[in-house]
Amino acid sequence: MRMYDIIDKKKYKKKLSDEEISFVVEGYTKGSIPDYQMAAFLMAVWCNGMDEEETLSLTMAMAHSGDMLDLSMIPGTKVDKHSTGGVGDKTTLSVGPIIASLGIPMAKMSGRGLGHTGGTIDKLDSIPGFSSDISDERFIEIVKTVGFCDAAQTKDLAPADKKIYALRDVTATVDDYSLIASSIMSKKIASGADAILLDVKCGNGAFMQDRESALKLAECMMNIGKLAGRKVNCMITDMNEPLGKTVGNSIEVIEAIDLLKYGFDSHKVDKRYSDIVLYVCRELVLMSDVFKDEKYNDMTEEERMNEAEILVRGAVDSGRALEKMKEFIAAEGGDSNVVNDESLLPEAEFKYEVTFDRDGFLEGVDTKEVGMASLILGAGRLKKEDDIDPAAGIRLLKHLGDEVKRGETFAYLYTNKKESIEEAKQRLLKAYRVSKESNSTKNVIIDILRQQ
Amino acid sequence: MRMYDIIDKKKYKKKLSDEEISFVVEGYTKGSIPDYQMAAFLMAVWCNGMDEEETLSLTMAMAHSGDMLDLSMIPGTKVDKHSTGGVGDKTTLSVGPIIASLGIPMAKMSGRGLGHTGGTIDKLDSIPGFSSDISDERFIEIVKTVGFCDAAQTKDLAPADKKIYALRDVTATVDDYSLIASSIMSKKIASGADAILLDVKCGNGAFMQDRESALKLAECMMNIGKLAGRKVNCMITDMNEPLGKTVGNSIEVIEAIDLLKYGFDSHKVDKRYSDIVLYVCRELVLMSDVFKDEKYNDMTEEERMNEAEILVRGAVDSGRALEKMKEFIAAEGGDSNVVNDESLLPEAEFKYEVTFDRDGFLEGVDTKEVGMASLILGAGRLKKEDDIDPAAGIRLLKHLGDEVKRGETFAYLYTNKKESIEEAKQRLLKAYRVSKESNSTKNVIIDILRQQ
Repeated sequence: MRMYDIIDKKKYKKKLSDEEISFVVEGYTKGSIPDYQMAAFLMAVWCNGMDEEETLSLTMAMAHSGDMLDLSMIPGTKVDKHSTGGVGDKTTLSVGPIIASLGIPMAKMSGRGLGHTGGTIDKLDSIPGFSSDISDERFIEIVKTVGFCDAAQTKDLAPADKKIYALRDVTATVDDYSLIASSIMSKKIASGADAILLDVKCGNGAFMQDRESALKLAECMMNIGKLAGRKVNCMITDMNEPLGKTVGNSIEVIEAIDLLKYGFDSHKVDKRYSDIVLYVCRELVLMSDVFKDEKYNDMTEEERMNEAEILVRGAVDSGRALEKMKEFIAAEGGDSNVVNDESLLPEAEFKYEVTFDRDGFLEGVDTKEVGMASLILGAGRLKKEDDIDPAAGIRLLKHLGDEVKRGETFAYLYTNKKESIEEAKQRLLKAYRVSKESNSTKNVIIDILRQQ
Repeated sequence: MRMYDIIDKKKYKKKLSDEEISFVVEGYTKGSIPDYQMAAFLMAVWCNGMDEEETLSLTMAMAHSGDMLDLSMIPGTKVDKHSTGGVGDKTTLSVGPIIASLGIPMAKMSGRGLGHTGGTIDKLDSIPGFSSDISDERFIEIVKTVGFCDAAQTKDLAPADKKIYALRDVTATVDDYSLIASSIMSKKIASGADAILLDVKCGNGAFMQDRESALKLAECMMNIGKLAGRKVNCMITDMNEPLGKTVGNSIEVIEAIDLLKYGFDSHKVDKRYSDIVLYVCRELVLMSDVFKDEKYNDMTEEERMNEAEILVRGAVDSGRALEKMKEFIAAEGGDSNVVNDESLLPEAEFKYEVTFDRDGFLEGVDTKEVGMASLILGAGRLKKEDDIDPAAGIRLLKHLGDEVKRGETFAYLYTNKKESIEEAKQRLLKAYRVSKESNSTKNVIIDILRQQ
């Protein structure tokens, strides 16, 4: 088999075999296929696409390129969730403890932030003492004993995907459904969970700009799941404004804890955020073993959904989810007192108030720009190697549809780099459109797709 | 300007500006753009194509990436010819001396053979003492004094094309019209001639397999010529069997000399070969300054063609072309006595007779395979670095349409590697299809396209 012939085949829109795709992935990972041939191949794939079987082959070859986590020692269905990334998305931080407190094992590996999007691992690492860098053995042990673990992806998790992604990133071949879907799914499959809920973000702060493309990606990933024998459901959720009130790291941890502390319906909790956490948890409960017992056989889907929601609400209202949060933080070496005392989390030296210079209603926002403003303050990174400031970020006091008044505080900027404030403020203000009339806002949950 | 954005644009089928294409060519040539980005770009071009203006930009950027030969010191219209390559194509070796003997300056830079195709420079270098590796100054001087010079492309002739071609060769991005056309034309434009005749070979021994694709490539190159202000005409000629009676190097030189020695209509000269030389010469005369004088103003195109043919025949019949051949060989350091005494050219140690095992008519031949059989005997190279044997090759006694008899000599193999004979013989015999009935053969000249 020669890489040249495989490139030539794909370029002429011919279907590649499982063996050919494995040859490409293995050869590139071990270095026998050079970057330039892989780049030509990826562009041929970008231009001509891959069908379901080819996409599955690519996913499985990448998943098997490194360690395959074996969670079989943990009894029952292990769940996982994954978001395609956005601004202010701290969902996992609330969901994990809720799900674990319901006795459902949740095994999750997360990434770090890049560009305008944040990463769960960066957020967790802002907790004093917390270390997301743990061994596979410890990961499995925590899932087994605590019920939820969230660790940084190890070097040996789908290394092929890591290498291929780095090349896609510099050859303009990132934005392809098959390539995105196989990249995400290879890591999810290698991480070992049986049931995976994917949260495909959709809007101007997300990779997928509109519902149509989000649905296409969701379908592509669900197909891979089906063919790979994993239960995969998808939610399409709105990312046309930041999720919740905070964008950053330690401040997002506080917001996630607040939901567990005050409950879904508290006025202290952002409605869009509590909605997404509630629905993600409900779906995970439905995918878990909770309703497996035959006594639930007669339940309608509607009844199960209601029951799942009651369980999720109960986990929060009873305080069990908050307790689980403490347990989880402690298990990964973090100071669990942060749950009761947010001042233990890193705090920024400078806090700057942002106001609008006119009256009106928030009509729209360039969500990516809010992420970039937060990055400028220190909360994000432009390049993988960059350091981030866990205390930096933005607190938004207003949402789309809200009224803003001239001179009224609209947001707070947190940073340790005083010199970054002006640029961040300008970008934040410019990101928003203010109109004279109030507009109705959209639901955060756009679609829920369940594998049949 | 960023290479990433340019790849992204081309991938979305957007038109690139002259500045963007220059940026790519310059950046890649000087090494600031890495192979992998260039490979992705080339595949995006392969998949989405380039329009006329983009192709011109690419051509000119590659032409200007190194030395631009300035032939202005030589008075009048300087002509050049180029063949897209085939098996047994020694046309230039007969054409150059004929054209020069008519007082038309012909300045040509040629390449070496690769794979099944031969190269004019390899053929010339088989002449004892001949050195195709000469300076630009000497090149210009020979064109000026002798009227014809054929030199190996210098390192500084379109170095961008050289580097890009090497990458295309390993990334399956060779077979694209814009890329092929700009590669050829960049070298022709940098070589400085005012009028260029392109011989686009077409058939199973050529890069272009059918008339349609040959026409498409011809059109593409003529367009570039037009936009670049050079006179460019094209001939489409048949390459569904080797051209002439010989495939190799020194034996092809002999065949080329024989035409000048015996004339176009001699039974010693292959009809297809003499046809192509006659028409190439006629077209070059028509493109030259020969009919520039106002006394020819009243001539019809038909009359000019006839007159040109008379001039070409006269050059050969008078012996002036043969004399010019000697002058040309001597000018580049070669032993001009080879023209009178072919035994001065390298001769192979082994000469092997090939016969058919059945009676019939030659109906078809896999021309590429004949080239490969010649390569196996030592006449060609698989990789650029390989050495070739100037004496090796194949002499074909029969052509398509000819009758072959069982046991009758059909071809001779020449080699210094005895061990190669069996494989070469098998490949040669297998390349031919023999039928029971005689079939009409096709004309070697398929189309002649003239710039309006």
